[in-house]
Amino acid sequence: MSVKLEIAQEILLNLVTVMPTERVALHECWRRILGETVISDMDFPPFDRSPLDGYALIAEEVGTATAESPVTLEQIDYIPAGGNPSKAINAGTASRIMTGAPIPQAATGVVRLEDCSVQGNQVHILDGRGAEKNICRRGEDLSQGEEVVKPGTIINAGVMGMLAVLGKSRPCVFCKPRVALIATGSEIVPVDFPLTPGKIRNSNSYMLSAQVAEAGGETVLVGNVSDNLDEIAHLLENASDCDVVITTGGASVGDYDLIGEVYKKLGITLLFDRVSIKPGMPVLAGTRDGKLYIGLSGNPAAAAISFEQLVRPVLMKMAGRKIWWRPRVKGILASPFKKKTGAKRFVWARCWQAGTDILVEPSGGQGNGMLKSAMAANSLIVIPENSPPLAVGTEVEIILLADA
Amino acid sequence: MSVKLEIAQEILLNLVTVMPTERVALHECWRRILGETVISDMDFPPFDRSPLDGYALIAEEVGTATAESPVTLEQIDYIPAGGNPSKAINAGTASRIMTGAPIPQAATGVVRLEDCSVQGNQVHILDGRGAEKNICRRGEDLSQGEEVVKPGTIINAGVMGMLAVLGKSRPCVFCKPRVALIATGSEIVPVDFPLTPGKIRNSNSYMLSAQVAEAGGETVLVGNVSDNLDEIAHLLENASDCDVVITTGGASVGDYDLIGEVYKKLGITLLFDRVSIKPGMPVLAGTRDGKLYIGLSGNPAAAAISFEQLVRPVLMKMAGRKIWWRPRVKGILASPFKKKTGAKRFVWARCWQAGTDILVEPSGGQGNGMLKSAMAANSLIVIPENSPPLAVGTEVEIILLADA
Repeated sequence: MSVKLEIAQEILLNLVTVMPTERVALHECWRRILGETVISDMDFPPFDRSPLDGYALIAEEVGTATAESPVTLEQIDYIPAGGNPSKAINAGTASRIMTGAPIPQAATGVVRLEDCSVQGNQVHILDGRGAEKNICRRGEDLSQGEEVVKPGTIINAGVMGMLAVLGKSRPCVFCKPRVALIATGSEIVPVDFPLTPGKIRNSNSYMLSAQVAEAGGETVLVGNVSDNLDEIAHLLENASDCDVVITTGGASVGDYDLIGEVYKKLGITLLFDRVSIKPGMPVLAGTRDGKLYIGLSGNPAAAAISFEQLVRPVLMKMAGRKIWWRPRVKGILASPFKKKTGAKRFVWARCWQAGTDILVEPSGGQGNGMLKSAMAANSLIVIPENSPPLAVGTEVEIILLADA
Repeated sequence: MSVKLEIAQEILLNLVTVMPTERVALHECWRRILGETVISDMDFPPFDRSPLDGYALIAEEVGTATAESPVTLEQIDYIPAGGNPSKAINAGTASRIMTGAPIPQAATGVVRLEDCSVQGNQVHILDGRGAEKNICRRGEDLSQGEEVVKPGTIINAGVMGMLAVLGKSRPCVFCKPRVALIATGSEIVPVDFPLTPGKIRNSNSYMLSAQVAEAGGETVLVGNVSDNLDEIAHLLENASDCDVVITTGGASVGDYDLIGEVYKKLGITLLFDRVSIKPGMPVLAGTRDGKLYIGLSGNPAAAAISFEQLVRPVLMKMAGRKIWWRPRVKGILASPFKKKTGAKRFVWARCWQAGTDILVEPSGGQGNGMLKSAMAANSLIVIPENSPPLAVGTEVEIILLADA
């Protein structure tokens, strides 16, 4: 069951649903995805207020005041921030007002303290121009009943501030999809084990844990297991509190490629077992009881690309995001790509702005291994299927990676 | 002591130093900043290995093999992943080899299983082209002694994988600067309190907590306090386990503007008390015992911009980042900006690509209040000091905000 990338994406996106929501303390909500429509239950500011320290007065009385010919008013009240005016303004009077304090009745402007000279309760206005602008109006930012933030919004600094203004101390956010990561392969040892001949460390689980986190998921690092059907099956069964179970290794053809067998044993319905992309062709997907099972290649280059193309959009959807895809732009090859391409190919790359163009080149261009290419990449070049080698100057499509 | 923005930035950046480092479990290192030079203590792969399941053999013997005229070899060994070859390859022989297993001595290629037909210990090679490419060479990714990752690197998925490969189970990362957030103002109530007349909720601390997190810092939400010198001073003294202490409110001129007084009382050396930008002019900076004290405006628009321009670069430096500044690009105004500009101004904005141009317009262009403008912004327009109103089509400098 080898399928085209777009078909595989559609199968998986159709299968999964958006996570339920949970209430989380506001201070822990940064980068979470809002799970409710937030409607303002009040005007904001909730009252006309002063944006500065000064005197509230009738703006029309002081419009022509200057240092040479000041207008003198009588101070009748003192309104601290958090306090309330006790008197309305009348002709010839003013009230001392603090930043954030409510504007007294009948006042139509505020003159800042620096433009006043005070003697006892006499206030000399030295510059009254624009006094009418110094009032923040009730409802200027928000009207009662207004829809302010939509579900699916990423909670950034502005949204955090807005939720606080509205008293949302425990906003409703989408639960993060829980993703189990299991590295299979008898050659794999845990990261803190000494290497013996023929062994390598489990790097895939760590690489993928970062990819999961970036897609809005929560990682459960199950660890590594040797190429043993029963042991792998046991770990998959034990990951039942997770929404997605990802294995690496044992995904390609061969007698040690066990994931397909494990799916069969566990009654997991196979959706596909290869996808026509390079790298990353060996990738299994299965489902059972609403849970998604993904079997990635043990090769980190293949696993990373399969994850990017197939698992990331799925996690973004589950996490409640509105946009599941990374931004794509057109770029121009600054170095040649010398290989022919059969199945659609993704190449780790670095891109940069040069005048009005975006130039791009493979980040592994100097014969670097995959891990160095991935570390240095800020983008992926997309090479369509059945492409010849690509010369410098060829226009290519680029996927921008946010982390870099 | 009003200073230009660039001077204020220089004063603060010269004052702070990079945080010490700590060792953290690798699975918690995503987005942390590496605090050590990582040198490879081995070649990687640590041995020549097979990238696929198949037969290791002498490539030159099978280069012309086809289904019609196969080359037949004798299987002499079986090398599982994690195992070790027991026999060297000789002319006419091949060893069954699994993905990730070590290449046996004298083998110069691997033919994948799908291109072989097996009967007992006879292996018929049906397509031997390119067999020599199917070996991942020892040291292909990394050489022993090679400098692999530099301090200051953000730990992304590729770096996570690399650290795991090298057995860095507890890499050395820079400690996050701890930032205390204190909202001052008698009109302020905690986010989960009911609003009474004249009061508003503490939104600044939450907005800033997200800005701190994005800059790589760790927030300590101290809470809010009324405009009382002794109470504010008490909270500042109690934040002594933090590296930076930020207050909002009480930063501009007026008798309820207390932060300067608090600094005096506590023996905090004032570095400056206003910076010529708009919004965000009222901002105090002080230092005592190597700690940095920042007094931002109580106005969220001003606090957010002062933080962006003055505090963010400082936290980025403390956090061990190599680049402290956000990317800037040239953009073209798609809507007019109708105000004259005195002090250098920053305007919340949305920018988008249009052909080869980047267009930009204020995100608060529809008379939105500050919080909505900030929520919707993906950039800031920088307007130089003493600028006239700006017409559609004017070229402007844009700061790109990553979160959006």
